[in-house]
Amino acid sequence: MSIHPIDVILHKRDGHELSDAEIRGFIAGVVDESITPARIASLLMAIFQRGLSPRELATLTDAMRRSGEVFDSAFLNKFTVDKHSTGGVGDKSSLLIAPIVAAAGLADPMISGRSLGHTGGTLDKLETIPNFNTQLSLKQFGEVIEKCGFSMIGQTKNLVPADRILYALRDHTGTVESPYLITASIMSKKLAEGLNGLVLDVKTGSGAFMKKYEDSEHLARLMVSTGEGNGTRTVALLTTMDEPLGRFSGNWIEVWECIDIMKGVHHPMYADLIQLSVTLSGWMLHLGGVSKTPEEGKTKSLALLHDGSAYKKWIEMTKLQGGDIKPFDDPAAFHKPKATRVLKAESDGYLASMDCTQVGWAVQRLGAGREKPGDPVSAHAGIEMHAKIGDRIIKGQPLVTLFTENAELLDTPEQMLRETIQIKQELPVKQPLIRQVIVADQQH
Amino acid sequence: MSIHPIDVILHKRDGHELSDAEIRGFIAGVVDESITPARIASLLMAIFQRGLSPRELATLTDAMRRSGEVFDSAFLNKFTVDKHSTGGVGDKSSLLIAPIVAAAGLADPMISGRSLGHTGGTLDKLETIPNFNTQLSLKQFGEVIEKCGFSMIGQTKNLVPADRILYALRDHTGTVESPYLITASIMSKKLAEGLNGLVLDVKTGSGAFMKKYEDSEHLARLMVSTGEGNGTRTVALLTTMDEPLGRFSGNWIEVWECIDIMKGVHHPMYADLIQLSVTLSGWMLHLGGVSKTPEEGKTKSLALLHDGSAYKKWIEMTKLQGGDIKPFDDPAAFHKPKATRVLKAESDGYLASMDCTQVGWAVQRLGAGREKPGDPVSAHAGIEMHAKIGDRIIKGQPLVTLFTENAELLDTPEQMLRETIQIKQELPVKQPLIRQVIVADQQH
Repeated sequence: MSIHPIDVILHKRDGHELSDAEIRGFIAGVVDESITPARIASLLMAIFQRGLSPRELATLTDAMRRSGEVFDSAFLNKFTVDKHSTGGVGDKSSLLIAPIVAAAGLADPMISGRSLGHTGGTLDKLETIPNFNTQLSLKQFGEVIEKCGFSMIGQTKNLVPADRILYALRDHTGTVESPYLITASIMSKKLAEGLNGLVLDVKTGSGAFMKKYEDSEHLARLMVSTGEGNGTRTVALLTTMDEPLGRFSGNWIEVWECIDIMKGVHHPMYADLIQLSVTLSGWMLHLGGVSKTPEEGKTKSLALLHDGSAYKKWIEMTKLQGGDIKPFDDPAAFHKPKATRVLKAESDGYLASMDCTQVGWAVQRLGAGREKPGDPVSAHAGIEMHAKIGDRIIKGQPLVTLFTENAELLDTPEQMLRETIQIKQELPVKQPLIRQVIVADQQH
Repeated sequence: MSIHPIDVILHKRDGHELSDAEIRGFIAGVVDESITPARIASLLMAIFQRGLSPRELATLTDAMRRSGEVFDSAFLNKFTVDKHSTGGVGDKSSLLIAPIVAAAGLADPMISGRSLGHTGGTLDKLETIPNFNTQLSLKQFGEVIEKCGFSMIGQTKNLVPADRILYALRDHTGTVESPYLITASIMSKKLAEGLNGLVLDVKTGSGAFMKKYEDSEHLARLMVSTGEGNGTRTVALLTTMDEPLGRFSGNWIEVWECIDIMKGVHHPMYADLIQLSVTLSGWMLHLGGVSKTPEEGKTKSLALLHDGSAYKKWIEMTKLQGGDIKPFDDPAAFHKPKATRVLKAESDGYLASMDCTQVGWAVQRLGAGREKPGDPVSAHAGIEMHAKIGDRIIKGQPLVTLFTENAELLDTPEQMLRETIQIKQELPVKQPLIRQVIVADQQH
């Protein structure tokens, strides 16, 4: 396409709407490297300041999606649906949702990322399973899905190269936090999975990337409109991220937690994780026509967890991707941290609040997360939470257990957790886990 | 200074005011090339969108000014004052103003640019004088000023290097038209001349870079506040640029026009040029304390033109810079275009209007201007206007004479001029030449 990059910049700079040809031509120039990083950076800042219309955003997302190889899911002859979360602490719901959805007869082609910053990454968790292969080609990916209904892999090298270039440049030039650019980045990667439906878990609260509720809501609306604008049924749930989800935050310990749940092991700290997972998968079953309503989908999801169907799918998928299922027999025994420390309550009261981002950084500092892409992560580092916000606390009871593979790493995270976890005399006001559901406008 | 470039971008991106340390640190990083072009482009677009406070703009301008060598005018022991125009067609007023100011006993250290786009450049005009040297070192520049009160040179390689880098990047990444960045670019170069006073000629109208009056006024206010904020008494005149100034537009023919005026040769087409020049120099004499009021300065300027004092200074300066003054004896005879064509009026009426930018492009296409930096320009190409807006026109009378050194270049400019010059039956409303004078706020 014959467009002049400078004209595209000037149009967006001055608040005009870009044509489809301008957007597609610019992205083509980004990928073939004919447009300089300085010009790309200039357009990114102009977009940051001026925003994008729903049409511009849908087109940008589609142009980015098609910048490399895409997963063609048509051969599966199934409704394909996936879930994406904007990132939380202790959020291992993908490991429950994908088997549930597959057990319900839908297909989930799940391509995930690694831990970065204060939130965990699905790939890092999966890779604690001995010999589990997350680096399948799209062909192998399709074969696993065809056999068991889902597969969980990392981004292939040729998937959405435009996003790799743009994200690196946004990080370098200060335009990461644009809801428009965040939407294009997330949605281009998700839509490259060839989805019929997508359910988004947009986090809000102290552990979310976006701290303000209205910012999370804006992002959710942009993502829904962008998915629908590209022919994928899209729903977003705004969910509370004020404390770690479930019991464990780390890598293997999160897998352990999910195996427990799929095996029917009960634990009081599992409740919020189960609730969130089946609510999300309930919507996925509804989009896929398995359930008449999302509520019915939730009930069905719980049933698939309880009757062992989800666990069966999980075992199947693990085997198909080369993973050793032996550790699943006794996941607690497979957890081998070098050092453990228990943080105890210093007073009676209620667990009132914490800065959940700070908790995420404590987990990262224990070795479970990474500071920069490419850093190694520890399989056995992390934390176990012993109470939820609003729980009655007795002085001296354990609040958090810290795990690490290097005892020297314990002090700072312990201090960080001690500082941020507040015990108060008054019962705190607790936000509901599901704050709002955003579906497409009537016209869609 | 230890600043993080990315923080500077984020602060400006989000509408915060930058600290002096941030601005100076960023400019230092631009000049030492430690900051990537992509980051610089991102900050430039953020500034384009968010603007700069008067303090930020004054600091940015000062940081740019001090990015290379500056002219230290203190040794002259004179009030130093210069004029700068935002660029017009046929605007040769610098060639009259500098000798007037020098004749009045002030010092004018004038560093000028070359023609680019539709407007002419003082350097290109001066360089039509055989052997005239515009490439003096700042030391030689000071010596010429010390001897005759003024000197006219081009930018030295080490003057304001930050502007050279930033301007090239703005041109490449679409941020040329920011009034804030225009102000910093112009004012950093002018203030590097070591000025006590500065008079700005901000053009408005169809031949100006800024077509809207309020945009020109905004730019003028920014420049005045920036000059005053850096300790230079600064005044801006908003002047009309709806038709070429004076009689000729080109290179040598503009020098010829000024020689005529300084020698006392009368021509009806010279009137607006003389009025503009003495109004500007009148303000310069007033700033420099030579005249109690700008009006008195204007009268004094006219006297210095009429009594031959300005011409004497002109001759002195030309000789000091190696120029051959022989052509001044008969400047008309020195004008040797290869081809000439006369555009005649096709009807009776009044000269009503023209797109003066289009006229400027016609002059450029004749060979007098350049399309891109580094292109050669013709000494003898250009146009002579035979009427001013509002003049009575008789069918068949000459309207414009076109000159070129390559006869093949005549057709297009002739067509451009024919299309844009309008003759109408009604007497047009003519804007006054001087629209508004902008001086510093009371607090300065």
